[in-house]
Parts: sequence; structure tokens; C-alpha cells
Amino acid sequence: MSSAVSPLAPTDVPDMPAIAGVKLATAAAGIRYKNRTDVLLALLDPGTTVAGVFTLSKCPSAPVEWCRAKLKGGKARALVVNSGNANAFTGKTGKQSTALTAAIAAKAVGCKQDEIFLASTGVIGEPLDATKFDGVLEGLAGTAAPDDWMGAARAIMTTDTFPKVATATVKLGKAKVTISGMAKGAGMIAPDMATMLSFIFTDAPISAPALQALLKAGVEDTFNAVTIDGDTSTSDTLLAFATGAAAAKGAPKISRASDPRAKAFVKAFNAVLADLAEQVARDGEGARKLVEIIVEGAKSKPSARKIAMSIANSPLVKTAIAGEDANWGRVVMAVGKAGEPADRDKLSISFNGIRVASKGARDPSYDEAEVSEAMKAQKVQIKVALGLGKGRDRVLTCDLTKEYVAINGDYRS
Amino acid sequence: MSSAVSPLAPTDVPDMPAIAGVKLATAAAGIRYKNRTDVLLALLDPGTTVAGVFTLSKCPSAPVEWCRAKLKGGKARALVVNSGNANAFTGKTGKQSTALTAAIAAKAVGCKQDEIFLASTGVIGEPLDATKFDGVLEGLAGTAAPDDWMGAARAIMTTDTFPKVATATVKLGKAKVTISGMAKGAGMIAPDMATMLSFIFTDAPISAPALQALLKAGVEDTFNAVTIDGDTSTSDTLLAFATGAAAAKGAPKISRASDPRAKAFVKAFNAVLADLAEQVARDGEGARKLVEIIVEGAKSKPSARKIAMSIANSPLVKTAIAGEDANWGRVVMAVGKAGEPADRDKLSISFNGIRVASKGARDPSYDEAEVSEAMKAQKVQIKVALGLGKGRDRVLTCDLTKEYVAINGDYRS
Repeated sequence: MSSAVSPLAPTDVPDMPAIAGVKLATAAAGIRYKNRTDVLLALLDPGTTVAGVFTLSKCPSAPVEWCRAKLKGGKARALVVNSGNANAFTGKTGKQSTALTAAIAAKAVGCKQDEIFLASTGVIGEPLDATKFDGVLEGLAGTAAPDDWMGAARAIMTTDTFPKVATATVKLGKAKVTISGMAKGAGMIAPDMATMLSFIFTDAPISAPALQALLKAGVEDTFNAVTIDGDTSTSDTLLAFATGAAAAKGAPKISRASDPRAKAFVKAFNAVLADLAEQVARDGEGARKLVEIIVEGAKSKPSARKIAMSIANSPLVKTAIAGEDANWGRVVMAVGKAGEPADRDKLSISFNGIRVASKGARDPSYDEAEVSEAMKAQKVQIKVALGLGKGRDRVLTCDLTKEYVAINGDYRS
Repeated sequence: MSSAVSPLAPTDVPDMPAIAGVKLATAAAGIRYKNRTDVLLALLDPGTTVAGVFTLSKCPSAPVEWCRAKLKGGKARALVVNSGNANAFTGKTGKQSTALTAAIAAKAVGCKQDEIFLASTGVIGEPLDATKFDGVLEGLAGTAAPDDWMGAARAIMTTDTFPKVATATVKLGKAKVTISGMAKGAGMIAPDMATMLSFIFTDAPISAPALQALLKAGVEDTFNAVTIDGDTSTSDTLLAFATGAAAAKGAPKISRASDPRAKAFVKAFNAVLADLAEQVARDGEGARKLVEIIVEGAKSKPSARKIAMSIANSPLVKTAIAGEDANWGRVVMAVGKAGEPADRDKLSISFNGIRVASKGARDPSYDEAEVSEAMKAQKVQIKVALGLGKGRDRVLTCDLTKEYVAINGDYRS
């Protein structure tokens, strides 16, 4: 396993302001790792609303099933996250584990079990011993404080090479509100699977249905537009919590996502999602290059998305980028296999702004030396213009390197 | 680029008998490679019928478009295949190239252009200079002979590490008929893309519509059930030719695929397809292990296929196998992401006959040492039982190794 920080890690880490109504605490519960924190407790003031989106896997983890069920209440008082064990594919034991964790947390926090939200990431198929939370969560509830966002982001890491946080402050009505979030990404947990977890907190007063609508719309072009290897975890979880504390400062209560007063808020909320999602791509397993794929001129946006994802998930495209080759032939291949409307003779393709193919053939101005130089950059943009309509989309991914294979295949040797 | 023969290459290479009505010849036309053959001409006696299936790519190569159009006539007198240049994404030039090649071939053979079939594999985006065939095809038409199947299979190779042939002899009515084929597989052509080409020949008298129906049905569980990396070439082509010469020996003319007299023939035909398809998987880029995925107990066969393909194309499953790890967690993940009906708590998973997971959790009898030993085998079978219905399917793939990344990413350095 590589422990070096990804060369694509952001160089600027933001100062993470406290959010009224949110307190954080972490501990080392010894779930799997030694000498590091592996439990996060986020305490949420009464009145906090919650929204969530989850993996589309037909075999979701026990915590995913727990959260889906509890989301109906719309209220949250605590979030408990552990790393080291995903509590996935653990049969009935898994369900018992979530129930026991929630019971321990509810007692520690002094709330209903239905107000506890859970996420787990780590090995799968091994029972999660929830008794390890006994005592630990009580202690955390006592020491939780508003500031340690980096510590929180670190406690939920598995093989992420850097903690991922993002924040934005924006006006809602006349009050300043803050949106802060953390994520863990598609670093593998030997010997198991990648999971994306992300948690967003705000002091803005947003009703649960409005928050759910915002989140659902917000992920579409952020987390849902990132792929590392096309594989989908059983545990992917994105939860958003709104404490409403800013109402005391005069922030208007938002009960519809379309409320015009929330326009700036929505923009900032989406920016936080986008920032975290990009950090996940930047920490893709073995990644050496961040790859942005833009498809335009498609029949529709969904069609553009499907083509962009076909390119982003193509092992041949990804290995070519690792090899710093503007291999537009593989891009054509990936466009062709997407099954979406495409006309070979109208297609044009650029790498980092240099057009390499147009109208169904190599661009007349193609200069291999120029393109090769451009491909050395850490960020590679592939732009495909289909020339058919107005559909446009953008997805992020990373290259496919030998390091990816080593991380995911060599851990036993 | 690796030039070592795949460790998965078959050890037994069959003697390839002549097929009445088929003559083969190869030449070095210098299309791209030096010191090797790169053109194959297959001469077919008058009356030969033809069928074909092609890539589903929306951006097919010029030869694919040529063949699709000519298939309507149902008659073939010659097949011309070149390696080194795929004549794909070459715009109008590509179309002119196929027309010129067909014109040269038709003149050399003495037939209509509509009876010439073409396939090209190699770099894409570079114009194919069809004038290189001038003179060459005429010479080949003069020297073509019934025997050199291995030479033919070699001339169509790109980065394949071994030539791929298969043959079967079977009774049709009271006459012995032969089915022989060759394929080239998913070896990369630096700096471009994998292409699967395969050509099947028989002396059986089969009408073009019957042959088309047989071929379409036959690929379903053979070539269509093989995946290397989920990427689809613009050039994949499988053509079948039936000379009908065995009619002179008393073989009945088959004009419907469902003709009961053709039962043994169909079985042998499918066996040749299956043999060639497996060889393609055995020559997957960087492959060290042949992987057979069996999904049973699905709601339907198409559902089983979708799940099997999701497993077969999962980079995480494929890297685990490269690492000789029976990582059933990743198999669960791949089942879950397929989007098909699956009940986590009914799922069981075996690796090489050893059950590692059952009823939604690790199998109680799981013995890591035993499983690890089994994973060292060159062939790994993953069996997933869903416990939902009677749908069953099987696909072949190979592992994902660092060598794959090297072949596809390192060629420029």
C-alpha cells in the first residue's frame, strides 16, 4: 500500500469555521486500525434537519439501510461514523450491529434512536463489534467541541492519502450562514472495497424536504459526476445536516428548495459538494493525473453524461493518460461504445485545448510534439464535441496507473 | 510492449484441414510492420454464402460499414484482411480506401466488388493507403492454397501473442463437413485500440439467411460472453463463409437454422466459436489468469449476463484475482452495482469450487489458507448463486495486471 500523499492533493486547505449547532469529537476505538482515530461523533442541536443520498447498489450495507429508514423522520441529533469495518455483507449480525450502535449513541446523546445516523467504511464481510462503541460514544458526547474539522475528516479516512474538507460562507437573507463538509474517497481498504462517504453541515434553517431536494439536485453534477473505476461501493453515503441555528441571527427559514431567497445558499452548497467531489477524484487510487471530461454538442445532457462516463471509465483511455498520450482513437472508441447518438464524421476531440481530431479524422493541424508537451500537465482535459445538439456534461476522473493495480492487487504479496 | 507468449496460450494446436472451396494466401505489404505478413486473402469458390456480426460501436470503421452493406447480397468470393492499420476514423478517405481495396481485389479474383469482404485492424486515424494492395492481391490470388491456416492466423495478428485457430469435423447428412476458423484478439496495437476479428469457414451448404441466424445465435454465449476490459473496438468483425462444396459429397442444403439435420453441425459450429472466443480471453492484454464467471439463480438469463459482465468488468475484482485473493466483498459489490434483482441475504459465492460466502455473510466453513491455495491456479472460476430464479449465464475474462497498464500506458516511454 502506498502511504504517500497523492500528488493531486490540494495545496490550500481552508480554515474550517465552527458551525453553530454542530460539535465534533473523535476517538480510537480499535475497530481495526492501531494508533489512529476511527470513530467520529457529530453532535447536532435539537431541531437539526437531515437529508441523504446513498449508493444505488442492490446489496447495500447495514448502515445504508439504517439511514434510509431513519431519513423519513427528517430529524437528526447525532452522526456516528466508523472506519475500519464497513458492516456490509454481514447478514443479520450487521442489522443488530447498527441497532446496538444507535442504542449506545442515543443513550450517550440523550435522544431517540431514530435521530441517530450511521456510516461505516472499511473491510466488508466481517462482523462489526458494536460493543466497542460502548463507553466510547459517551466519552465523545462529553468532549465534543465545534472546531476539530480536520481531526474529524481524518478519523473517517481509510486509505485516503489526505483528509478532505471544504467550506463556504454565504448570506441567507441578511444573516451569514456557513456550509462545511468532509469526505472520504475511493481509496481502497485492503482487502476490501472503496467507499465514498461525505457529510455536510450548515447552520442555515432548511426544512428536511427542502434539504433533500437541494442535495439530490446538488449531487447530480458533483458526486454523481465523479468516477474512479466505475465500481460502486455498497456503502456510499452522503448526508446533509442543517442545524437551523442561523435563524437566531435572522436567516429566513427555507422550506422549498426553489425559494429565491436561497439562491446564493444553493450556489455555495453546490460549490462545497463540487469541491469535495473533486478532492475524491484527486485521491483516486494510484492517481497521478486529474482528468476532466467535457462532452458537448450531444443530443441531451443525459446523453452527454453517458458518453462522458463511458470515456471516464474506459481502461484504455485511462491508461493512455497515465502514459501521457493524447490517444484520441481510444476516446472515439469510448464514444462509440456508449451507445448514444454520435456521428463519427462530426466528432471533434481536444486534449488540454489542443484539437487533435475533427470531422471524423485526424486534425490537419495536429502536431504531436505540441500535444505530447500538453499531456505532461497534472490536469488533463478531454473535450469531445459531437456536433449534434446542445447537450453538455462534465465528469471528473483520474488516470489508471500501475499503482492502482498494486494498491488493489498486491496487498497479499 | 511485451512479446512473450501469454502463459494462458493453449498447449495443443489443432491440425487445420483444408476446406473445399477455400484457399488462403498471405503477404507482407508493408502497411505498418516490417518483416512480417500483414495481408490475408481468402479465396472462396463461387456459390459461397456469407454472414456477419459486427461491433455495436456508434463509430464503426470503414471496413465494418463496407461489410454491413455487402452482406445484403449474401454472396462472397473473397475476404481481404490487413493488419497494421484499422482504417477507422479516417473520414472520407476511409471510405475511398475500402472502395479501392475492393476494386483491386475484385479485379484480382475476377468477381464483383459486392462479393469482396474486408477487415482491417491496427492504428486508427491514419489513412490506409490502399494502393499498397495493388499487385499484392493479384499475386496472392495466383498463389492461394488450401493449407496455410496458421500463416493466415498469423498475418491478422497485431499484438496477439499467439495465432488463434480452431476446427471441427462433423456429419451433415451422411457427408463429413469441416468448420475452421481463426481469430485475433484484444491485444493492443500501440498506440491504438484492441480489435477482435474472427473468420469462420465451412464447406457445408448453408444458405446466407440460415448462416446469419446460426452466427447470431452462436455468438451470444461465445464471443459476446467474453470481455477483456469492457472497451469495444470500432472494428470488431466476425464473418462466416459457407462454400457449399460438401453438397457434392451429399451434404443436404440447409436453408433454415432450425433444420433438424443441422443439429450436429450447429453444435460443432458453436464449439469452434467458443474455442476461438476463449483463446481471445486467454490472450487478453497482460493476462496471467483466465477467469470464468458463472452466475446462477438469477431472475433470467439476461439478468445473469448483466451481473456476470458487471463482475467481469470490475477493475476491483480483476485486480484482486491478479493478487490471487478470493475477495468476495468485491464480487458482492459488482453484483450490487449491476442494478439487477439480487438479495444480499440469499447470495452465495464460490471461488474454484470453494464456498466463501453464503446467505449474506462469510461462509462459516471459510478457511483462508485453503482458498488462497486454490487462487494460485491459472484458471479461476467465480460462481455466484443468487437464489432468486433459474437464470444462468457464463462469461470469460482475464485478470487485470500491471502488465495491462504497461501495455496500454507505457508504450510512449
